[in-house]
Amino acid sequence: MTKLQPLLTADELVDFFCEAFPGQDRSAHDFVEIKSGFLRLRNSAKHAMLRPGGIISGPTQMAVADRAAYAVILAHIGIVPMAVTSNLNMSFLRGVEARDFYADAQLIKLGRRLATVDVRLWQDDESTVVAQSTVTYAIPDQ
Amino acid sequence: MTKLQPLLTADELVDFFCEAFPGQDRSAHDFVEIKSGFLRLRNSAKHAMLRPGGIISGPTQMAVADRAAYAVILAHIGIVPMAVTSNLNMSFLRGVEARDFYADAQLIKLGRRLATVDVRLWQDDESTVVAQSTVTYAIPDQ
Amino acid sequence: MTKLQPLLTADELVDFFCEAFPGQDRSAHDFVEIKSGFLRLRNSAKHAMLRPGGIISGPTQMAVADRAAYAVILAHIGIVPMAVTSNLNMSFLRGVEARDFYADAQLIKLGRRLATVDVRLWQDDESTVVAQSTVTYAIPDQ
Amino acid sequence: MTKLQPLLTADELVDFFCEAFPGQDRSAHDFVEIKSGFLRLRNSAKHAMLRPGGIISGPTQMAVADRAAYAVILAHIGIVPMAVTSNLNMSFLRGVEARDFYADAQLIKLGRRLATVDVRLWQDDESTVVAQSTVTYAIPDQ
Repeated sequence: MTKLQPLLTADELVDFFCEAFPGQDRSAHDFVEIKSGFLRLRNSAKHAMLRPGGIISGPTQMAVADRAAYAVILAHIGIVPMAVTSNLNMSFLRGVEARDFYADAQLIKLGRRLATVDVRLWQDDESTVVAQSTVTYAIPDQ
Repeated sequence: MTKLQPLLTADELVDFFCEAFPGQDRSAHDFVEIKSGFLRLRNSAKHAMLRPGGIISGPTQMAVADRAAYAVILAHIGIVPMAVTSNLNMSFLRGVEARDFYADAQLIKLGRRLATVDVRLWQDDESTVVAQSTVTYAIPDQ
Repeated sequence: MTKLQPLLTADELVDFFCEAFPGQDRSAHDFVEIKSGFLRLRNSAKHAMLRPGGIISGPTQMAVADRAAYAVILAHIGIVPMAVTSNLNMSFLRGVEARDFYADAQLIKLGRRLATVDVRLWQDDESTVVAQSTVTYAIPDQ
Repeated sequence: MTKLQPLLTADELVDFFCEAFPGQDRSAHDFVEIKSGFLRLRNSAKHAMLRPGGIISGPTQMAVADRAAYAVILAHIGIVPMAVTSNLNMSFLRGVEARDFYADAQLIKLGRRLATVDVRLWQDDESTVVAQSTVTYAIPDQ
């Protein structure tokens, strides 16, 4: 995977996401780092749905993982809006407090038809993983 | 699993969900059927986030699956708000059109500490499954 | 899925499996029922690897789920040896005793390129599910 | 996870696996590296089941992932034979040729009751991941 190079900048990605999901504001797509095979997304609690216990809900975490996977793929293949999730598996490991958390998305395989991404959600410290997700996207013929 | 009996009615469940997720209106929790080991949730496109292609987004589908799993578990053990998702796996099989769709949640195992639920999302016809999810919840000591 | 019809009999499937996996004897492929969208595989403890505790190992259970999924797909599309597993998710729900157990494989979606199968392992009684698996196979162009 | 320290050496682990799975020879448990939160297992094609196409079967890959996860957990908590897999998800990314391949198991979370491990299978080069698996083990009260 060492030869993968991002084709899009964070700004270009944000432009796409704002157009694709019109109800959301620009700060919902805070791609703080994009490099070979990798993307980091910062998430503010203000966009999150809370669940009983005052912690960030599972669906919010899954939405973030799915978004980070979509973003890292598009960053490397260009804008292909009809790439769609075909499988997502998520393990919830720790409660996520109602403050900033991060999603680190790493391309494990970028094939012609399928891309698989490992996404780790963490809070406070990279080594404190709060959830792990493996996401597969189907990429349409272009 | 034949001896499982729901402890809560649909109305009691809706009351809980409205309290637990204050931002959502009553129609977001449309439990149309609850019976032994089973719950059916109707979803209107008006609560859904759409994605490019005008179809219902993956995160919306995952949120629905997670909610149906939570609901069928609480229906059978009573109101235990701090039951939390520990794993969710979802296979997305077909595009989901922007109209009503359903989630059928079936308890596969209801243990003391863990409950596992099979959730199938379908549209138009029960046999046209648009997504399948297996959801595991951890149940706290009570 | 109501219009699916098996193209192969149990005997034809067993012939294929015996050829494809030469080290295994005929009784390892005991397809006791094949019908529209469905296949049941009986498993004898004699083919199983045990794990500490004297119970049937997780890898044995996964091998059985994968085999039942492969078999139900081939039963409905004919002999396509190069269909390969692309994803398998398994939840282990109860210990499996060292005696006969069954795998019920149900096609959830049979597409041109991907097939998704729900597999439930049970012992003694169909309603006592010991493990649930969702298996996706990629089907090559033919 | 930086403070995790292995409690067992490779030799002690091999001894346990040889006792626990009596049918297998010592070379089936080739733990080539154990360090904080991490274990690498080398696998020879001679222990593998092949599938049509002459490649290493999916069940063999899952057995390897499950074993590597079990080993990395025991390496860090000591010999707890009744730790059992509760969930395993595997994405098969590339065909695995009938020669040596490796499994790198990394502890994502080591809790008191549950441990979650990311396992990557690779061949020839660490960056050529052939399969990714997330494995959760339930750890009994001790």
